[in-house]
Amino acid sequence: MGKYNELFARVKGLVKNVDKVIFDLIPEGDPRSLYKASRHYPLAGGKRVRPFVVIRATEAVGGDPEKALYPAAAVEFIHNYSLVHDDIMDMDELRRGRPTVHKVWGVNMAILAGDLLFSKAFEAVAKAEVSSEKKARILEVLVKTSNELCEGQALDIEFETRDEVTVEEYLRMISGKTGALFDGSATIGAIVGTDNEEYIKALSKWGRNVGIAFQIWDDVLDLIADEEKLGKPVGSDIRKGKKTLIVSHFFDNATDEDKAEFLRVFGKYAGDAKGDALIHEDVMGEVARAIELLRKYGSIDYAAEYAKKLVREANEALKVLPESEARKDLELLAEFLVEREF
Amino acid sequence: MGKYNELFARVKGLVKNVDKVIFDLIPEGDPRSLYKASRHYPLAGGKRVRPFVVIRATEAVGGDPEKALYPAAAVEFIHNYSLVHDDIMDMDELRRGRPTVHKVWGVNMAILAGDLLFSKAFEAVAKAEVSSEKKARILEVLVKTSNELCEGQALDIEFETRDEVTVEEYLRMISGKTGALFDGSATIGAIVGTDNEEYIKALSKWGRNVGIAFQIWDDVLDLIADEEKLGKPVGSDIRKGKKTLIVSHFFDNATDEDKAEFLRVFGKYAGDAKGDALIHEDVMGEVARAIELLRKYGSIDYAAEYAKKLVREANEALKVLPESEARKDLELLAEFLVEREF
Repeated sequence: MGKYNELFARVKGLVKNVDKVIFDLIPEGDPRSLYKASRHYPLAGGKRVRPFVVIRATEAVGGDPEKALYPAAAVEFIHNYSLVHDDIMDMDELRRGRPTVHKVWGVNMAILAGDLLFSKAFEAVAKAEVSSEKKARILEVLVKTSNELCEGQALDIEFETRDEVTVEEYLRMISGKTGALFDGSATIGAIVGTDNEEYIKALSKWGRNVGIAFQIWDDVLDLIADEEKLGKPVGSDIRKGKKTLIVSHFFDNATDEDKAEFLRVFGKYAGDAKGDALIHEDVMGEVARAIELLRKYGSIDYAAEYAKKLVREANEALKVLPESEARKDLELLAEFLVEREF
Repeated sequence: MGKYNELFARVKGLVKNVDKVIFDLIPEGDPRSLYKASRHYPLAGGKRVRPFVVIRATEAVGGDPEKALYPAAAVEFIHNYSLVHDDIMDMDELRRGRPTVHKVWGVNMAILAGDLLFSKAFEAVAKAEVSSEKKARILEVLVKTSNELCEGQALDIEFETRDEVTVEEYLRMISGKTGALFDGSATIGAIVGTDNEEYIKALSKWGRNVGIAFQIWDDVLDLIADEEKLGKPVGSDIRKGKKTLIVSHFFDNATDEDKAEFLRVFGKYAGDAKGDALIHEDVMGEVARAIELLRKYGSIDYAAEYAKKLVREANEALKVLPESEARKDLELLAEFLVEREF
């Protein structure tokens, strides 16, 4: 994985300037608790993959990466706002190895911190060093993105109360939840750097595909990963009853008998916020059997191959752009996202 | 109150076109529950005072009110988003006579519906029929407004755990919670209609003052209103322990003995979401005594006069604008807000 290590060294170098913008916009301000809560996730790190996409997209279309710093901060703010609010909804207690915002500051302050981060995303757009025309267009894209995020999350909530979710429905949901923001990041980066509509469209398609693939690969990893690398027990999605592409494929193909057997484990520990802690042997035996059933219908391979295909198409779309280091980095990032083991 | 009836007939006529924009942006869309939850408050009515301010501000500076429709929708979206999230935080069960969003759809969907309304505010800016330069400036003002809203609400939450709040601190809090959005509305309306910085500044000052006065008058009404006109029992803020300008003035001036007596009632029913239902006689006796103490130090009159003074200064600021029907309507609205009995 040497080439990926080099990639992430470059990411780290590039996003330092984005971090400066981010923390300028959310300083240790007043009211203190609001700003502390808002800084909690940005301070906890995260790879800043989306800001990296914005900057590299600007460069890949021949633009000035300096102009992409505020737009890059904007998408990272959107990402963090959605994490804060999603964690409340999912009752998650840990994020990036630290207690979630609502665990530390309570649900009310977490709602507000998310709201402030959301507002800061648009402040970053307002402050972008681009023409008013480009600013207006970036605003348009960011709004479309954040609408889609809400819709995707609402679908996800809706799915929780459903017995089955079709492949098509699942794809629509993650297209909103993760596809939209990668699409938005790449599109905004392109808009900063060019007026060439063909380039902008290519990066939009790249981002959408890569975002969807990223999420699907996450779901695959939950079932096939090495527990030590993953940092959590295998199959937690099964115990929680999370509807993934893999599960949708299984339901579309399995016999009633196999479905019934799968359903005896699937979601058995839904609503248990500490689901990950349930690793005693009988549970793991059940989960192993459920994974066997998914394998029987090729559902895990189906999803893995689906993600890889999306990435191939994504990188294919980039071929309208001139070759460059930036384009190569985007291609490499896309490949990494469906090859990573953690 | 005949002149006010005519004013509100004009409001009603004007904001019909804003409502069209609002419901175009939040149609009966998909996912259904998300869009239903998002439409809940806008459908329940509300006077649309802020959109009216936007439109009249545009006219008062000589601009075309048609161009103000999307910006007017934007501020109404911000207002409604903050209502949805504030109602969750305050655990309120009723709003505009209907169950609150989180009572009907649950907290998770309410968080999301608020987020979508927030996003729609910026979509309305993106779609405004003004130059890109004006759009960028409107974006700047709206962002400042929504940052301030978050800060004001955070202060409000912080105050709940404090024993005393000074007059200065209280004013800072409502400057964010209600001053900012009236300021933003008037400022944005002015920006739509003119490049004259003196006019824009005058309307900003008008809005800030009027918004603060509006909230102070609300607090006054809670103590002096006719219960039938108000639609809820007098003194509910005292029972809930709400820190208002009146209470801050009292704490700044009362003897320790009077403070101690006041504190025996103040906040006695805090945390009881149904506080308004507690109207049996012994409680009302306690509240009447607390109100007497506030009167002893002139705290209610102080606040009422403070609000009226803010409105006088607000309307004074408008005198840099040429006389017009629109300016007259803004002046009339400001007066109404500190004369109304409900």
